[in-house]
Amino acid sequence: MGGLVTLLTDFGHSDPYVGIVHGAILRRSPNTRIVDLCHHVPAFDIATGAFFLAAARDRFPDETVHVGVVDPGVGSDRAILAVSAHGCTWVGPDNGLLDEVVRSDQRAVVREVDAHGVGLPAESATFHGRDIFGPLGAMLAGGRIQFADLGPIRDAHVCELDPTPRVLFADHFGNLVTSVESGAIGAGANGLVVAGSTFPLCRTYADVAIGEPLALVNSYGLLEIAVREGNAAEGLAVGPGDRVGFATE
Amino acid sequence: MGGLVTLLTDFGHSDPYVGIVHGAILRRSPNTRIVDLCHHVPAFDIATGAFFLAAARDRFPDETVHVGVVDPGVGSDRAILAVSAHGCTWVGPDNGLLDEVVRSDQRAVVREVDAHGVGLPAESATFHGRDIFGPLGAMLAGGRIQFADLGPIRDAHVCELDPTPRVLFADHFGNLVTSVESGAIGAGANGLVVAGSTFPLCRTYADVAIGEPLALVNSYGLLEIAVREGNAAEGLAVGPGDRVGFATE
Amino acid sequence: MGGLVTLLTDFGHSDPYVGIVHGAILRRSPNTRIVDLCHHVPAFDIATGAFFLAAARDRFPDETVHVGVVDPGVGSDRAILAVSAHGCTWVGPDNGLLDEVVRSDQRAVVREVDAHGVGLPAESATFHGRDIFGPLGAMLAGGRIQFADLGPIRDAHVCELDPTPRVLFADHFGNLVTSVESGAIGAGANGLVVAGSTFPLCRTYADVAIGEPLALVNSYGLLEIAVREGNAAEGLAVGPGDRVGFATE
Repeated sequence: MGGLVTLLTDFGHSDPYVGIVHGAILRRSPNTRIVDLCHHVPAFDIATGAFFLAAARDRFPDETVHVGVVDPGVGSDRAILAVSAHGCTWVGPDNGLLDEVVRSDQRAVVREVDAHGVGLPAESATFHGRDIFGPLGAMLAGGRIQFADLGPIRDAHVCELDPTPRVLFADHFGNLVTSVESGAIGAGANGLVVAGSTFPLCRTYADVAIGEPLALVNSYGLLEIAVREGNAAEGLAVGPGDRVGFATE
Repeated sequence: MGGLVTLLTDFGHSDPYVGIVHGAILRRSPNTRIVDLCHHVPAFDIATGAFFLAAARDRFPDETVHVGVVDPGVGSDRAILAVSAHGCTWVGPDNGLLDEVVRSDQRAVVREVDAHGVGLPAESATFHGRDIFGPLGAMLAGGRIQFADLGPIRDAHVCELDPTPRVLFADHFGNLVTSVESGAIGAGANGLVVAGSTFPLCRTYADVAIGEPLALVNSYGLLEIAVREGNAAEGLAVGPGDRVGFATE
Repeated sequence: MGGLVTLLTDFGHSDPYVGIVHGAILRRSPNTRIVDLCHHVPAFDIATGAFFLAAARDRFPDETVHVGVVDPGVGSDRAILAVSAHGCTWVGPDNGLLDEVVRSDQRAVVREVDAHGVGLPAESATFHGRDIFGPLGAMLAGGRIQFADLGPIRDAHVCELDPTPRVLFADHFGNLVTSVESGAIGAGANGLVVAGSTFPLCRTYADVAIGEPLALVNSYGLLEIAVREGNAAEGLAVGPGDRVGFATE
């Protein structure tokens, strides 16, 4: 078998870039399965990319190779990292894209990849998804190279997390995802306060009437603000960066 | 072999939600093939979802498992259904999403899925595509559970179809798809009348000059209004809901 | 094994059209792998489709079957072509979509496909991706038909290329891709001149400060104009069709 590779990028779908990365993987490892995790990370938005990439943890088979390419420094001397964490291998540029993955597994091991050493010199200075990251994923998933042989171990230091409880981003439905984990809901909390409004803390969307706003724990395990069968990002005066707090009885 | 699962949702591609459903399937059944039927059903639009889902009938190998998730009632006590129809199995929430599939096969068998009974308690109250529908598709496609064991048979009742001949929606090209089947074209009919305009009934787009409007039978077997190499939805004063009639010689 | 098929279309993702082509392939050849090269070619834009399709050359395994469907003449008497070039087989309508592939391989062989003869009469007059092109790709990739048996050899004539050095299109990042190949960079050239502005010729995006414009050789091997971590198409007064020249020291 050729193993499993997932791809996360900011390439979008308007060009053949994603398809060409698939080709680069299949040229190296014809039996590798490929899953497109997400290709609509906003251009150059490393923080959102890091969040989406880490959302794959525990959601794929063990030994999956997760490849992330949000890489504004492509072609510069920024390093390439590989991480062993959560039972999987993760590959990406050394710019913070792998921070959430490393932060969430205390046993994470980080290596700096010697691209030349493993036989992956870059053909271009602009498309390392095709030239390095995709092929590296293929070689790892197909068993043609081992994690231990990629390069030297590095400190697994990551940027400090912004502790401010806040709205992170709006998803496709307009649901406003916050940084607040479900575990932070204290006894007596019955609402989420954002931008001067209080949203009732519910279990599921159907707990309020259609068109009404609410707060609930979403599938990331985080608090989110939503409008039942509506679009909170468009309909409420709340947006990314707004601070979040709890209301109590 | 792991069988074939198709996915239809209103998740869009801006988040990792679709990728995570792929992961949930592959964790249960690593050899299952997955085809993305469509993920751009308008948010919460069950009628369009039902139409798109039924468009898959007779277009995939026998025994394909078609999974549909347009599910505004996720987390509530709405039931989960499985349908045996058209030589395939179909899975989705009990909200009308499977109506077109059931309606179009008189031998359709509908079962109410006992999710707990088959070992699929929901981890979340917001993402049953990941927690239930995807894994259920994987188990069925991979042969780990049989249709007959999913739960009790239910009446295959479906909502009554709106008999009004009308424009349903515009597709990616701006072609206006109507509810009128090709079989309804009477002898002598030579045009389609919508919103006060008459469009000539043609066989293919190239039967009129570039930029000219026409009506023709599309690949769904339905009448549609199009503009050759143009966009009917943007260029004509016709839209979803408009009534449709025939002009005769 | 069932071989590998890639798909390039102008179908977009808002309908189930792409999914249905996958189904049409898998019905003919259940083990064929399918890669979506790109489905967001602008509607009816044969020139961009031809460019994107040819971008797949040398990027996929040998013997891949590349299927292109940008086909405004669907249902008319336009021919269907198959091309053997670059170690792969290419299939598409006879409207220029395969021109770049043919032009770039002097040993290209072009055949006119006898669709009826190979057992592929069109079910519809509007969706030959489903009825002919997809199934043809499946039969070729799965080895059920050979290139030599598709129909008679034709002259490999292609439209003459517009020799004007110019901006072709903007990609997802807003990078402005030109028609100028890297080999055209003369000794002493140190900038690209477009629309009265001169952009410094650099090796990679990181060679200028964030927000600054530059010109560089991109992953297609062509000159492009970009803004580091910005959007050149939105931020510069440069667009498709603008003439391009070099500045020298």
